[in-house]
Amino acid sequence: MNLTGIIGYTITPFTENNNVDFKQLETVIDTLLDAKVDAIAALGSAGEAAYLSEDEWESVASHTVSYVAGKVPVVVGIAELTTAQAVKRAKYAHKIGADVVMLSPFSYYKLNEDEIFLHYKSVSDATPLPIMIYNNPATCGVDMSPQFMLKMVDGIENARWIKESTGDIQRMHKIYKLSKGSVPFFNGCNHMALEALNAGAVGWCTIAPCLIGDQPKQLFDAIKNSNNEKARELFYQQYEFLEFIVQSGLAAAVKAGMSAQGIQVGHPRKPLLPLTPLKQEKLKSMLIDLGCFS
Amino acid sequence: MNLTGIIGYTITPFTENNNVDFKQLETVIDTLLDAKVDAIAALGSAGEAAYLSEDEWESVASHTVSYVAGKVPVVVGIAELTTAQAVKRAKYAHKIGADVVMLSPFSYYKLNEDEIFLHYKSVSDATPLPIMIYNNPATCGVDMSPQFMLKMVDGIENARWIKESTGDIQRMHKIYKLSKGSVPFFNGCNHMALEALNAGAVGWCTIAPCLIGDQPKQLFDAIKNSNNEKARELFYQQYEFLEFIVQSGLAAAVKAGMSAQGIQVGHPRKPLLPLTPLKQEKLKSMLIDLGCFS
Amino acid sequence: MNLTGIIGYTITPFTENNNVDFKQLETVIDTLLDAKVDAIAALGSAGEAAYLSEDEWESVASHTVSYVAGKVPVVVGIAELTTAQAVKRAKYAHKIGADVVMLSPFSYYKLNEDEIFLHYKSVSDATPLPIMIYNNPATCGVDMSPQFMLKMVDGIENARWIKESTGDIQRMHKIYKLSKGSVPFFNGCNHMALEALNAGAVGWCTIAPCLIGDQPKQLFDAIKNSNNEKARELFYQQYEFLEFIVQSGLAAAVKAGMSAQGIQVGHPRKPLLPLTPLKQEKLKSMLIDLGCFS
Amino acid sequence: MNLTGIIGYTITPFTENNNVDFKQLETVIDTLLDAKVDAIAALGSAGEAAYLSEDEWESVASHTVSYVAGKVPVVVGIAELTTAQAVKRAKYAHKIGADVVMLSPFSYYKLNEDEIFLHYKSVSDATPLPIMIYNNPATCGVDMSPQFMLKMVDGIENARWIKESTGDIQRMHKIYKLSKGSVPFFNGCNHMALEALNAGAVGWCTIAPCLIGDQPKQLFDAIKNSNNEKARELFYQQYEFLEFIVQSGLAAAVKAGMSAQGIQVGHPRKPLLPLTPLKQEKLKSMLIDLGCFS
Repeated sequence: MNLTGIIGYTITPFTENNNVDFKQLETVIDTLLDAKVDAIAALGSAGEAAYLSEDEWESVASHTVSYVAGKVPVVVGIAELTTAQAVKRAKYAHKIGADVVMLSPFSYYKLNEDEIFLHYKSVSDATPLPIMIYNNPATCGVDMSPQFMLKMVDGIENARWIKESTGDIQRMHKIYKLSKGSVPFFNGCNHMALEALNAGAVGWCTIAPCLIGDQPKQLFDAIKNSNNEKARELFYQQYEFLEFIVQSGLAAAVKAGMSAQGIQVGHPRKPLLPLTPLKQEKLKSMLIDLGCFS
Repeated sequence: MNLTGIIGYTITPFTENNNVDFKQLETVIDTLLDAKVDAIAALGSAGEAAYLSEDEWESVASHTVSYVAGKVPVVVGIAELTTAQAVKRAKYAHKIGADVVMLSPFSYYKLNEDEIFLHYKSVSDATPLPIMIYNNPATCGVDMSPQFMLKMVDGIENARWIKESTGDIQRMHKIYKLSKGSVPFFNGCNHMALEALNAGAVGWCTIAPCLIGDQPKQLFDAIKNSNNEKARELFYQQYEFLEFIVQSGLAAAVKAGMSAQGIQVGHPRKPLLPLTPLKQEKLKSMLIDLGCFS
Repeated sequence: MNLTGIIGYTITPFTENNNVDFKQLETVIDTLLDAKVDAIAALGSAGEAAYLSEDEWESVASHTVSYVAGKVPVVVGIAELTTAQAVKRAKYAHKIGADVVMLSPFSYYKLNEDEIFLHYKSVSDATPLPIMIYNNPATCGVDMSPQFMLKMVDGIENARWIKESTGDIQRMHKIYKLSKGSVPFFNGCNHMALEALNAGAVGWCTIAPCLIGDQPKQLFDAIKNSNNEKARELFYQQYEFLEFIVQSGLAAAVKAGMSAQGIQVGHPRKPLLPLTPLKQEKLKSMLIDLGCFS
Repeated sequence: MNLTGIIGYTITPFTENNNVDFKQLETVIDTLLDAKVDAIAALGSAGEAAYLSEDEWESVASHTVSYVAGKVPVVVGIAELTTAQAVKRAKYAHKIGADVVMLSPFSYYKLNEDEIFLHYKSVSDATPLPIMIYNNPATCGVDMSPQFMLKMVDGIENARWIKESTGDIQRMHKIYKLSKGSVPFFNGCNHMALEALNAGAVGWCTIAPCLIGDQPKQLFDAIKNSNNEKARELFYQQYEFLEFIVQSGLAAAVKAGMSAQGIQVGHPRKPLLPLTPLKQEKLKSMLIDLGCFS
């Protein structure tokens, strides 16, 4: 599988009774497909995976795979505290026909490199699914250097891609340079998309298409087509919006935005709170400026 | 209840089959009581709470309360991702007769202050148990300022103590100064015990008595008795050991140490790994120097 | 004046007796002109301005202006601890016919924004020379936000450009977005050139042409011509070299490189030390790879 | 010489014409002696040394030594960018009869350890004066580890004391532990005085006695006499004031305070600005609370 382009992330809609709303999950998936994403990822941080029960997690994963029905590849995010749980989830993802596991070393204790390596290796040994190594110290509590992630790509059979979300463009330069361009990496920091793609990222993992349609895809295409002026223009159009959703919390921001657009997806789970009215207004005005609010 | 002095933390022993070893948990508790601790805390970070199933967590909590049997107060640590789970655990702690809940805002997303406040308030509203606010951004992923924690003590009924584990002594000065000394706080950073207690901390939350007996209690007493020279001497005797167990991971370090001392408590759960042989040797030599290895 | 493109920086050559070597300064200037730079900057950090006496500083400035003789604009760097000295140097720069003052708020104490604003305003009021605001907290000890620098461009008559050297690409996005693209900014962080120019920087301030000729200019042109593939290729060719000279200290690295290339420019002034033999070898091998060593 | 206790720092008073006011410098020195300081230090950061001409610097140094006239030892601060200048200043300090040189590696470029070592060694070789190694990355731009400073004490003949101003108490624990208590160190971070002295600091370098008399000395004595309760009380009385003068800039804050107390010492030199009226009021109210304003 040649994973590239825009990987669109789903949020997990809830009903008023705080149950997963599978019907609206389908709407979210349709929204992403309409936005021309090249793959769909479920149960990332924006999908509130950490706040679901194991049953809910499994249902969301399987429902996503079956509803996407092979139109594009499906990535399933796994961020479990214990290796045993991570392995269990990966096996489930494989059983239901997911295409890729996105694995991050969620930690309570800071993990050392030996511990992280074995964690990834155990998941790799458990299924044939290819693995995207996901580095996001802001949510996962542990940071992995480019050197170490490349070592994992080299030494762990199914580790194939890197998703870099530290916000430090030098990490991407290091990945590209140290691997002589041979290890594909994705941008995981929304408001860094322009430089990441210029630096050689093969794609961009983002929740943004849930709200602004194919504008991320247009930006991706402009850079691939060497249309620098258009790329810069598209990027700065989206810039404040991209920074806003990151800083406001992706789940809360995207849920507020979709509801404002008329797709009721409920609130994030506590302790997460909905956007304040002030922030809702700010988001709405940005969506209007981007032509995504009628 | 007037909580003060040394709050000794338990590790959670595992059998060879990776089940909780309740018999050895009793040995750990006896070790702490022999070390003259003023209270016992279960299911803190050193107790691998994050790596237990809900059933295991409940069993450890109830077994600890019943085995301590009122000899000293029992604190139960709660660090759950969702507010619903935190409330459920607090109710359980109350049901089994625990004395104090130590609550930290474990997060995947960075939480804002409104979210944290409501999280604490929900737990406070659920039971009459007094709450220790526990700030440890290194494990929990979210940092709370002295000003904010004092606001919670002020506005949330059962919030009574603060445990500060950032390692920044200025935080304690701020707590003391802003509350005019009225809000009791605990030191949660082992290798900062000397200055924390001098700065007005009412006690020290520590796993160290599992390995070095009443030496932390001796240090506490020396400071309370204004015996500065002795306090400095005791602190520097323990300093490298205290820094070592923090930097090596408390659960792995203490389990290695107890096993070396002849109390088999098993290994930490994966992805956590046991200490390397080199570190085991280092720990052993420090325990010998401290007179805790025969 | 429409400053854009590559601004090439000079080092300050010393004789064996540790005096300024004006003859070799001419060679350095010729090297930059051969490298097709669009402007020449003297007395930046790489020019060891901080380590020159006032007399030496003035001689280097006037010699540079007269030798360049209008072929390209000349920028003079000013980084003085007192406002009085900064004003004096700016007046001198104006007197000798320099075109631009690059001004940074070198500090011992951390300066607040009122202090920095008045410092810049005093220099602006002293001469009609246009000013480049230079932000480099790593050398100058004080950091200026995009918002504050834009406020200075707005409120201080001669302030016209910004040179951003923090290494944080988000700063450039903020400058571009907040000024609606109206305030020209330069990249001042060598190993960030690719993303800075893609983000809208009008040019790149760099010492690199002293050693690798017009390769920085080629990179600049490739981006302006929307030749993304070539830009990426050129950038990664230079990347390790650019990072190396920054991390080794620009003056020491460039002096070692030029001497290796046969242009004897002496050593940096103490406490700065020449590159170690190991680093000299590393630099030489990189220059060979870049085709700049025969 | 056995340097210990409170080392009181002078500010450098200016006349209305912005010249050094030597008569008021004598008043400052008298103020320190009345405050029972154990030594006097001139030309530290609070003395605006970085903003004086070489002539002024020499005059302040010699005037201080002659006016103190052996009542207590005199420390002279040296923070020069070039090694040559630092050596020249040290020779001057020796010639006029100063007792100690306090040397910091003021930098434009980040210096590496070899460069710093040679800088200190050159100064040490130039005079027989004992040297206090002064680590203050916030002003000097370079940070020295405890390990490295101890290496300098070990390998450089006249290096005898360390003044630690990072604000990180762990640095002091490291100095004490690694040197087995044999290398005397001073606290250089005002609002950390309580823990520094408890951690084994032999003294406290501070400008505070200029404004609050012998209260720092009282705090020092309380700790040395193992009167912990009194020490804590004294520390928290001074705490906000100590933090305030650090955060407002020592020179500006102390000059504002002395002028408010009736001793006209002028303003700091530009770009430094006087305290704002709001901050002057805040300072005045703190001085009233401390009984230092009538």
